[in-house]
Amino acid sequence: PAERGVHEMTLTANFPVPDEAIHRDLVSIVGEGGVSARRLDRLAYARDLWPGSILWMRGGKVPYLPSFIVWPEETEAVSQILTYANAHHLPVVPFGAGSGVCGGTLPLHGGIILDLKRMNRIVAIDRNSMTVTAQCGIMGECFEEDLNVAGFTLGHFPSSIYCSTLGGWLAARSAGQLSTKYGKIEDMVIALEAVLADGTVIETRKTPRSATGPDWKHLLVGSEGTLGVITTATMRLHPLPQARIFQAYRFPDVPTALEAIRATVQYGVLPAVVRLYDEVDTALTMTALGAEDLSGNLLILVFEGGREIVALEHELTARFCAERPCEDLGAGPARHWWEHRYDISYRQSEILSNEGMVLDTIEVATVWSNLVNLYDTVRKALSPIVTTLAHFSHIYPEGASIYFSVIGHAEETTDEAYYRKIWETAMAACLEAGGTISHHHGIGYSKAPWMAQEHGTLMGVYRRVKDALDPNGILNPGKMGL
Amino acid sequence: PAERGVHEMTLTANFPVPDEAIHRDLVSIVGEGGVSARRLDRLAYARDLWPGSILWMRGGKVPYLPSFIVWPEETEAVSQILTYANAHHLPVVPFGAGSGVCGGTLPLHGGIILDLKRMNRIVAIDRNSMTVTAQCGIMGECFEEDLNVAGFTLGHFPSSIYCSTLGGWLAARSAGQLSTKYGKIEDMVIALEAVLADGTVIETRKTPRSATGPDWKHLLVGSEGTLGVITTATMRLHPLPQARIFQAYRFPDVPTALEAIRATVQYGVLPAVVRLYDEVDTALTMTALGAEDLSGNLLILVFEGGREIVALEHELTARFCAERPCEDLGAGPARHWWEHRYDISYRQSEILSNEGMVLDTIEVATVWSNLVNLYDTVRKALSPIVTTLAHFSHIYPEGASIYFSVIGHAEETTDEAYYRKIWETAMAACLEAGGTISHHHGIGYSKAPWMAQEHGTLMGVYRRVKDALDPNGILNPGKMGL
Repeated sequence: PAERGVHEMTLTANFPVPDEAIHRDLVSIVGEGGVSARRLDRLAYARDLWPGSILWMRGGKVPYLPSFIVWPEETEAVSQILTYANAHHLPVVPFGAGSGVCGGTLPLHGGIILDLKRMNRIVAIDRNSMTVTAQCGIMGECFEEDLNVAGFTLGHFPSSIYCSTLGGWLAARSAGQLSTKYGKIEDMVIALEAVLADGTVIETRKTPRSATGPDWKHLLVGSEGTLGVITTATMRLHPLPQARIFQAYRFPDVPTALEAIRATVQYGVLPAVVRLYDEVDTALTMTALGAEDLSGNLLILVFEGGREIVALEHELTARFCAERPCEDLGAGPARHWWEHRYDISYRQSEILSNEGMVLDTIEVATVWSNLVNLYDTVRKALSPIVTTLAHFSHIYPEGASIYFSVIGHAEETTDEAYYRKIWETAMAACLEAGGTISHHHGIGYSKAPWMAQEHGTLMGVYRRVKDALDPNGILNPGKMGL
Repeated sequence: PAERGVHEMTLTANFPVPDEAIHRDLVSIVGEGGVSARRLDRLAYARDLWPGSILWMRGGKVPYLPSFIVWPEETEAVSQILTYANAHHLPVVPFGAGSGVCGGTLPLHGGIILDLKRMNRIVAIDRNSMTVTAQCGIMGECFEEDLNVAGFTLGHFPSSIYCSTLGGWLAARSAGQLSTKYGKIEDMVIALEAVLADGTVIETRKTPRSATGPDWKHLLVGSEGTLGVITTATMRLHPLPQARIFQAYRFPDVPTALEAIRATVQYGVLPAVVRLYDEVDTALTMTALGAEDLSGNLLILVFEGGREIVALEHELTARFCAERPCEDLGAGPARHWWEHRYDISYRQSEILSNEGMVLDTIEVATVWSNLVNLYDTVRKALSPIVTTLAHFSHIYPEGASIYFSVIGHAEETTDEAYYRKIWETAMAACLEAGGTISHHHGIGYSKAPWMAQEHGTLMGVYRRVKDALDPNGILNPGKMGL
């Protein structure tokens, strides 16, 4: 097929004319410049980075469109928009920067896209307490750069950092490349401000801890816009690292390497970066990143922080590795990975622009005693239908995540049917092996069908809480298996 | 007044005759040995370690009594009891070992005390993943001893460890004496099983992390029995420490000592124990623990874990202390504290048995930039009415808790009025200074009046979630300001 332009693609989309009265009302809240009902804007917000929605685009399909995009600049405006939408039963999809890979921002029922990117101010840096309070629409890389200037780091480096926001990280439960040391987004958040479906503004106290009931932050973190709109967050900061040490090893097999990693973290050493690539991922990814040819199972380690601490961490990790068969590759491959650590994610759309190509990532997790089983089970299930590579990149004392990349070409079936088969196979294998179906990409639209199996009776709790906080179901409807 | 025996005390209690039909129904679930309606049992469960309820006892008053105590042995029995209670709108108070100090288990509306202490089995130790799964009624010290035999520690050492349970720790958001290294109870829990008010059993997945919606564990942790009954938990384990180093310093004032502590933890060093006693607490507590006379502001440090790690932690902490005016007291006072670390809590009832004496502890928290302000504000407010001492014993990169002990004698008023005045003064001062009203003792009955000020609009979320999960309000009614 010839190249498709916007015009041709929109032919298959149903563009209902947005209601003029609603448009006027939204303008009265955020002003003319704060609302759009233009076709081009509506089309731009019709998808995120979910490969399934890219396949739709590739096929010229735009199944879901919002009626309005609204850009509030203050919490008060978010509250007014939600109060209004709730009164009129209008769907509202909170939106950060659209880097989600599970269709979490698809406007399945039309309505309003609530784009928070203009809420991008750093409200305060508390140098003494080492915390920062910021509006949630701030873009990741800008946020980190501003913090660096002040002498701090957030320690959160998702590969989406150039196209994701603080609020998106929190709502979609982000985990960064340095999570083993700095923790995941839920470990970093000290306090939240959010707006409920009915416009009520809630705020948790800025305190290191409080024994005054459930920790309500955790109701919103990971809720993917279904329970409230996160507007401001107070996050823990760290001093900029004094020192950084790079180290790589080659292991003969995955289980041996995992044992070295497990021994290290269970001894109490948490390197900033721990990435173990299996043989296929070592060959493909490192080549894609422009490294010299590498074989075997590559372990990349980066230590950062106080000078004496990272020196000891490096020494102890080296000891646990040396107790097992492995080859010391020096700093080179780890340093190379570091320099190219954001490159790979941005290749996805390029590859997916080729007719018939299917590419996705499937990140699951389990405890150590089940990790090799989960790895083997998912790989075995997928290998007959798609090329599967994997790395282990978020490490915990009690387990780890497995990040599968799948890449294939639809041969005897449609792209979408092939794509669906890959996911059905992977999710069934993961659940059978006792893994959780997502470690950090979330659920959104694409994984919603497996939420019942993931959670069992817990889904009843989610539904009851959803009904209690959003009785009209306006917040991100159709997501999360609710 | 002469000594009071049980008989005399019960005179002021209203002992309604328990309903025989209900008794029969409960027996049909847990057997004859699993239910009691005996007066002595009902009296024993009429209070916990809240000093206010001890004052009641001292005055011969027993304002609240349960009708039944029930001892289930399995989750299935808990489910049946709750299903039954929910159908009959009977209040149910989940009960661990009764060491709470906020009246959290007072049977304000009578009904059933659900004592979980017979659910005390360790279900499984996963050596590879370093986790333990146990029924929640297991007593703290027994649990730790069993884990030690297996080569592990939980790392959780609340001063109540001899009279508190795993489930109580989770429900009431416990923090142990080694929390700065090992974290608080919410940091240690990997998975939970619980029973909702309608008898539904819910279970979170045993996984190091999951991005599949809100983390429902955190709805139950700290909910103090108002949202569900925690029945089984999977907890993170640590290897038994290879080494332990004791160290004490004397500082000229509290702010200087706090700066040394702040510099240490913000550099990335987390000692297992960090306890800074102000001058009054140094004098009184250490004397009570039988140490030689000590003056000044005592800082007690204990490092434990891997040998090389604790050596470095000790060295770095010493460096941060030495940068400020302080005196190195060697290991002695810290070792002495360690050997007597559980003694002090058990003196409380003894002191409170004296007519007119009032004694309590008030633990609050805030971020570093507000810590000295909170300390000064609360002390200044309390000093005209009661002797006030304080220590700082749970340290975070972003702040710390302050543990005030108050001890006084009701002179011109009744014990209860005096006691109430102390709390009203402390809570008002804490909230005015921006602190949270509880760091780890919880809310229960005694602090419920301040929940609205603590949480503002967040209380609406708590109420809506409560109504959604427990529409008949059977779970621990009258608590938490709901």
